[in-house]
Amino acid sequence: MSGDADFGWRLDAAFGKFGHLCVGIDPHPYLFARWGYDDTPRSLDEFSKRVLDACVDRVGIIKPQVAFFERWGAAGYRALEEVIRRARQADILVIADAKRGDIGSTMQAYAQSWLSPGTPLESDALTVSPYLGLGTLDETMDLARSQSKGVFVLAATSNPEALGTQTSVVTNGVDAGLPLAQSIVSRVHAANEASRQVSGGVVIGATVSLRDFGIEPDEFPGLPVLAPGFGFQGADPRDARRLFGALTNRLIVTETRSILESGPEEIRETLSQRAAIVAEALA
Amino acid sequence: MSGDADFGWRLDAAFGKFGHLCVGIDPHPYLFARWGYDDTPRSLDEFSKRVLDACVDRVGIIKPQVAFFERWGAAGYRALEEVIRRARQADILVIADAKRGDIGSTMQAYAQSWLSPGTPLESDALTVSPYLGLGTLDETMDLARSQSKGVFVLAATSNPEALGTQTSVVTNGVDAGLPLAQSIVSRVHAANEASRQVSGGVVIGATVSLRDFGIEPDEFPGLPVLAPGFGFQGADPRDARRLFGALTNRLIVTETRSILESGPEEIRETLSQRAAIVAEALA
Repeated sequence: MSGDADFGWRLDAAFGKFGHLCVGIDPHPYLFARWGYDDTPRSLDEFSKRVLDACVDRVGIIKPQVAFFERWGAAGYRALEEVIRRARQADILVIADAKRGDIGSTMQAYAQSWLSPGTPLESDALTVSPYLGLGTLDETMDLARSQSKGVFVLAATSNPEALGTQTSVVTNGVDAGLPLAQSIVSRVHAANEASRQVSGGVVIGATVSLRDFGIEPDEFPGLPVLAPGFGFQGADPRDARRLFGALTNRLIVTETRSILESGPEEIRETLSQRAAIVAEALA
Repeated sequence: MSGDADFGWRLDAAFGKFGHLCVGIDPHPYLFARWGYDDTPRSLDEFSKRVLDACVDRVGIIKPQVAFFERWGAAGYRALEEVIRRARQADILVIADAKRGDIGSTMQAYAQSWLSPGTPLESDALTVSPYLGLGTLDETMDLARSQSKGVFVLAATSNPEALGTQTSVVTNGVDAGLPLAQSIVSRVHAANEASRQVSGGVVIGATVSLRDFGIEPDEFPGLPVLAPGFGFQGADPRDARRLFGALTNRLIVTETRSILESGPEEIRETLSQRAAIVAEALA
């Protein structure tokens, strides 16, 4: 299922050209050392541009990690604006990993910040947090649909501390009895079905056991899944089909350190290799 | 309980001077119209400065809403840096309402962004989201403690969509059987007790029925509570004692629209009036 040129369609187009690999751009200070940079906003700018240049014609999707830009306040956001602008000009889909979440007009302001055409931070998709209730994201989803953008809701993450929260059992409403993560996945999928547009997706860690969260992959065909944790963090793209079943159709295989740690001289070759491995695994 | 010059102590000092009122600075486009501004980054700057100037010598705490600055990308963050810097120079505590939440070194980057001395966005406290597990916030809490800063964890919010998530029942660990919001409040309180420092606080909506979330106020003496929803949004500060019981000791009574809507001519008088009402109610 996919609407006419909705976000699902745009994702499929990116997959068709370069496969399912998404490069996480995390300008972490420890990587600056590896790349021969000091820890300054200028390095942030240089590092991000060089990673991005290497991505052009090799991968179709990037995921800048907003926190590492925010460290530098306005100067960091200037660097981020530039990365996003250049990536989108090069026809690379940008998923802003900001994990924003708030209520009412405040959430709307976040949605506008990242998904409205013409804003300085306009991206193709945004990650959001559901702690304030999935209903708080309705207007964000509406905006995304109207602009063929994507919204990835945190569902099941691979960090051990998350299990307590994400397996909590919903006690009221239609999802009573379901683990929180499962309720989120099924509601995001249902909203896509109801609108006949694929705008909503979920974040599921690559090393997560879906069964722990009550998530049955075959129930959600076509749902976009942003999966960090491939490569350095332990998951092998060659296991993606076994791990994600039917959810591999729109699985965004995100690798970060395995690529960024290769450094400025080798990043192009590493990218080509990783993209080929991911493309073959999900062919 | 309060450590030597920890965040709890700093909060008490602000309460002692100006009472418990905290002014939300939400530069919402609809307010610009009321203030005679157009919707531009320059207005953001002007509006925030004028609100802040009115706060000096009248209130001890402000809470800028980051989303409304983020709309303008780097230009918005420049305006935010300026508001924060000026407020802290005027000895006003700044609670950055950013609701950030992530894992590992990414969460550390957010914590550094807002709580590390000398960063462009250095504030006195930050709001954070617990969906990825309270354990992901440990290092943020450590940083806060070492710098006498505060961290307010979203617990129970007043928007109706939140109830399903926040009353979900934890199924594993020491908090098994507790509603998620209650588990968060008690763990933040326990961390303060264990460290003998008051750095952690919680966000609880002013119009929330604490009983719905299993929260018994008298169990958490001295826990800082950031409570939005007073004034325009329906809660009356004169009901604070009845609503929050022992939690009123460090209750931060946050009003936003009731103050900002008064416009540029009347904001000083409105601020003085609201501060007096809050001070009297919580005396």
